[in-house]
Amino acid sequence: MSTEYFIVLGVVGVAFFAVSGALLGHDKSINGFGIVVVGVMTALGGGTLRDLLLGKPIFWVETSEYLLATYSAIFATVLFIRYMPSPSNFYFILIDTIGLAIFNVIGIEKALISGTGMIVALTMGMTTGIFGGLMRDVVCREVPYVMRGDVYASACFAGGLTYAALFALDIPYIWCILGSISVTVLMRIASLHWGVKVDLFRKRTPRPN
Amino acid sequence: MSTEYFIVLGVVGVAFFAVSGALLGHDKSINGFGIVVVGVMTALGGGTLRDLLLGKPIFWVETSEYLLATYSAIFATVLFIRYMPSPSNFYFILIDTIGLAIFNVIGIEKALISGTGMIVALTMGMTTGIFGGLMRDVVCREVPYVMRGDVYASACFAGGLTYAALFALDIPYIWCILGSISVTVLMRIASLHWGVKVDLFRKRTPRPN
Amino acid sequence: MSTEYFIVLGVVGVAFFAVSGALLGHDKSINGFGIVVVGVMTALGGGTLRDLLLGKPIFWVETSEYLLATYSAIFATVLFIRYMPSPSNFYFILIDTIGLAIFNVIGIEKALISGTGMIVALTMGMTTGIFGGLMRDVVCREVPYVMRGDVYASACFAGGLTYAALFALDIPYIWCILGSISVTVLMRIASLHWGVKVDLFRKRTPRPN
Repeated sequence: MSTEYFIVLGVVGVAFFAVSGALLGHDKSINGFGIVVVGVMTALGGGTLRDLLLGKPIFWVETSEYLLATYSAIFATVLFIRYMPSPSNFYFILIDTIGLAIFNVIGIEKALISGTGMIVALTMGMTTGIFGGLMRDVVCREVPYVMRGDVYASACFAGGLTYAALFALDIPYIWCILGSISVTVLMRIASLHWGVKVDLFRKRTPRPN
Repeated sequence: MSTEYFIVLGVVGVAFFAVSGALLGHDKSINGFGIVVVGVMTALGGGTLRDLLLGKPIFWVETSEYLLATYSAIFATVLFIRYMPSPSNFYFILIDTIGLAIFNVIGIEKALISGTGMIVALTMGMTTGIFGGLMRDVVCREVPYVMRGDVYASACFAGGLTYAALFALDIPYIWCILGSISVTVLMRIASLHWGVKVDLFRKRTPRPN
Repeated sequence: MSTEYFIVLGVVGVAFFAVSGALLGHDKSINGFGIVVVGVMTALGGGTLRDLLLGKPIFWVETSEYLLATYSAIFATVLFIRYMPSPSNFYFILIDTIGLAIFNVIGIEKALISGTGMIVALTMGMTTGIFGGLMRDVVCREVPYVMRGDVYASACFAGGLTYAALFALDIPYIWCILGSISVTVLMRIASLHWGVKVDLFRKRTPRPN
């Protein structure tokens, strides 16, 4: 994938996550600059961890467009909310999921370019996608989305497998990317629509502690 | 700024944050070595993240004086609390704010020395200042200070702008530093005294979730 | 210590922590792939932070056996829990403690090999041992073990001192390792059995906030 693709996709992903962070912060009545802190953390957290793990320079330190996109998206969200009705929970999840899907793909690509194997690359994609939202939820004292048994990490993983499969078939990059993003987004939205939950465990009474 | 300045200022900042971590831990009846863990995390968390982001060696791995200052401040706090009346919340906030102001300046300086632009440098200053206290609050299961709508991140940001302005005017380093620290500390203390809150959002009823 | 030792010990430690993460996740009725996320975070969090701090390549990015061991241990736990009675809290703590003791030793060794002094090495051992479990507890919204006043961080520290003492006496590596692990595990188990708590602070009424 050429560098321009990376940056455009990355800027879009960063903006989506920044909006999701600002929205959740608003919801939890975090105010003032705390919103900016949550937004920045959500937008940049996953990619920062990915770059640290791969031993690469951090993307937003090197290319400050990401930082500008983050701040702009946060301020746009703050302005929007003042003059618009509160967005429904569906839009929040949609925004969060698009960010997840995009970051997943970027994480996988960056790992593969660094020469890791596919299992490390898929882990890196999930890290990039999940970690920012996880920090957002922890800091806002929410039960993290990824822990609620929804189709979240599994949608991310399915998107990763799609990417790996299309990649193995020598499909052009742009279709690997679009295929992976579509699978993640559709799987998450469909599962919410039909109320699907992933049950790895047969339920039991909890251990005493 | 010469290296000695850096180290002296850094050691002072680290000690302040270590004390704030130990005090909050005490408050939340964390006991035993947990206090040491909270103190270390508060004192070293922000600077560690900054060095990771800038791709520099971690300050306390390279210069173990920081680690000694941290441990000493924690043990001094533990001793003090046994024989002194509990400090009031005001002192806690003052200590936390001085740490914030110092780390903000150090973060900005280190980023500028690494050759980043001013927008990345201001972000790095806030990261250095805020992250340790944020980890402390998350681990102690407090609502993070930075999320409460107080003048916290905004005081930090104002301190950063002060630094940037004095720096652009070619004022000697020592005055840039002192100016920035004073602005952050005074803004936070004044806002607490007059009960100022930052309201970026017009309040609305929360979205259902 | 030879590289094979490192890897064998590391793989065992990673597997223990992965199991502990999956068990706690099960307990807190986290379901679906969230379990995998918690397990991975617990198993790899501490070592990842250590490698970042030491400026080394991340162990599981370089040697993907660790990642395979982590996923295998998580899936084995998921299968086990379906067909076995819930393990008691004692087994959970035992598994967690063995992981802690092993990671402590590995952290100290890796730091010493990197040429740090003993005080940095002991801190690095505690970081490696404690951080993964701390992330697990934060994400599962538990009071972190390390904060409960149990003999936890202190058992880890005692294990570190044991290692340092045996190392200074030129005892062969294998005994340094086994000695340190035994001290940590026995100290934690004994303290639970006799209900020992570490009280650094004389108790006081909490500060108002």
